[in-house]
Amino acid sequence: MKQISTISFIGSGNVATHLALAVKAAGFEVKDVFSLHKNHADILAAKVEARAVGSLAELQRDTDLYLLAVPDKIIDPIVRTFHYVEGIVAHTSGITPMETLQKTARYGVFYPLQTFSKEKEPDISKVPFCIEGNSPDVLQSLSDLAANLSDVVYEINSDQRKYLHLAAVLVNNYTNYLYRMAFDILDAKQMDTSLLIPLIEETFAKIREMHPDKAQTGPARRKDLPTIEKHLSLLEEFPQYKELYTLFAEQIIKKYHEQL
Amino acid sequence: MKQISTISFIGSGNVATHLALAVKAAGFEVKDVFSLHKNHADILAAKVEARAVGSLAELQRDTDLYLLAVPDKIIDPIVRTFHYVEGIVAHTSGITPMETLQKTARYGVFYPLQTFSKEKEPDISKVPFCIEGNSPDVLQSLSDLAANLSDVVYEINSDQRKYLHLAAVLVNNYTNYLYRMAFDILDAKQMDTSLLIPLIEETFAKIREMHPDKAQTGPARRKDLPTIEKHLSLLEEFPQYKELYTLFAEQIIKKYHEQL
Repeated sequence: MKQISTISFIGSGNVATHLALAVKAAGFEVKDVFSLHKNHADILAAKVEARAVGSLAELQRDTDLYLLAVPDKIIDPIVRTFHYVEGIVAHTSGITPMETLQKTARYGVFYPLQTFSKEKEPDISKVPFCIEGNSPDVLQSLSDLAANLSDVVYEINSDQRKYLHLAAVLVNNYTNYLYRMAFDILDAKQMDTSLLIPLIEETFAKIREMHPDKAQTGPARRKDLPTIEKHLSLLEEFPQYKELYTLFAEQIIKKYHEQL
Repeated sequence: MKQISTISFIGSGNVATHLALAVKAAGFEVKDVFSLHKNHADILAAKVEARAVGSLAELQRDTDLYLLAVPDKIIDPIVRTFHYVEGIVAHTSGITPMETLQKTARYGVFYPLQTFSKEKEPDISKVPFCIEGNSPDVLQSLSDLAANLSDVVYEINSDQRKYLHLAAVLVNNYTNYLYRMAFDILDAKQMDTSLLIPLIEETFAKIREMHPDKAQTGPARRKDLPTIEKHLSLLEEFPQYKELYTLFAEQIIKKYHEQL
């Protein structure tokens, strides 16, 4: 089995950027960076001493791994126009099945379970990499690469991965939206939003020690209807948030008081 | 102004227990612990070298502070049967107005903005204490006490405090319920829930650096309807969670794509 030593990136967004920087720092060679927006490819390519290309046909054919870090909806169109390569072709998506890449010979998934943004450098060594391969050989190559970047590498199949992606939306995107609702309320009432930080931190810290099922507290958990009513009357000032508050309260009451 | 040096606790639940241990550790004397369940009072009293009492009439009258850490609905009944005392009477509730205590002479609020549970010792020094008093004197005494326990002391009035309590429910109780939904999904699909921990940690870490309004990402943020549709089809197996997923998606799309 040939170890991966050269990598080309298809895409130049946040995921491509953080992964390209990470593999470069770990001693791998980044050969090409492709983006439909050539100027975006230029920026990333400069950071990792790679060549920027504006068309797929220009990609060098002898790279060990072609990593597709692009929006889900363009994975399939890209693969359909991909020239034959001997290297591995892998995507970084949580929701797209591995078999979307089956037109290629050796393919897999290299999904980092983390939220990447321009503004914040993630600690790649703590990011769980979820790996899948169309052969034991590909699986091993991608796992070895991931192990060079992170302490946490899991083999996750396409069926599991889509549920994992769903769960990630809940704990990241939707949790962040709850933070936003809370911050909006404090902003409106002239309170310092940093007041909430220790509580948010403790909420997170608790799940290291107990299942969230056991950690559930609050007015809905104890079916404290007078407090819920008071909150709903406060939410008259924030009508856009009332429906979500109410649905959570109903669901938690149902879960803990009506399904016993 | 007389500094607080002796404290009696009305209540012996999680909040009373953690606060009593904290004031004791900070060098204050805990005189009495009252609980309607005398055996509960016994347990806490033993931990802080105090006297346990099973009726309010038995409380010593010369304590500097009577701290009511009890369910909201019994604050008013307790105060109505309270004997006259010269010490300060304060409650620890987020949602009950300070004026509920106005039958007493010197009163205030001593609200620790944190989630307390039996299983986990909180770091009291990081807990924001939200203080209110019916006079500058009471306010100062309660603030001084809080400053002995914590680095973070805020003066928050009753009107602000109820919104703060609402916000706390969002970032603690409802966030925890999102964790639970995610953990249930991973459990059902035989995946290790610890896979989600780095993502949850990063979601929290981001709000230290940017407003959650700016940190919002994900399928709903980018109005990626095909991915949302895929998630909804996965949720057919978890029908109890489908409604919340859908409402979040709708609200985020509305917020970021229809109110621009």
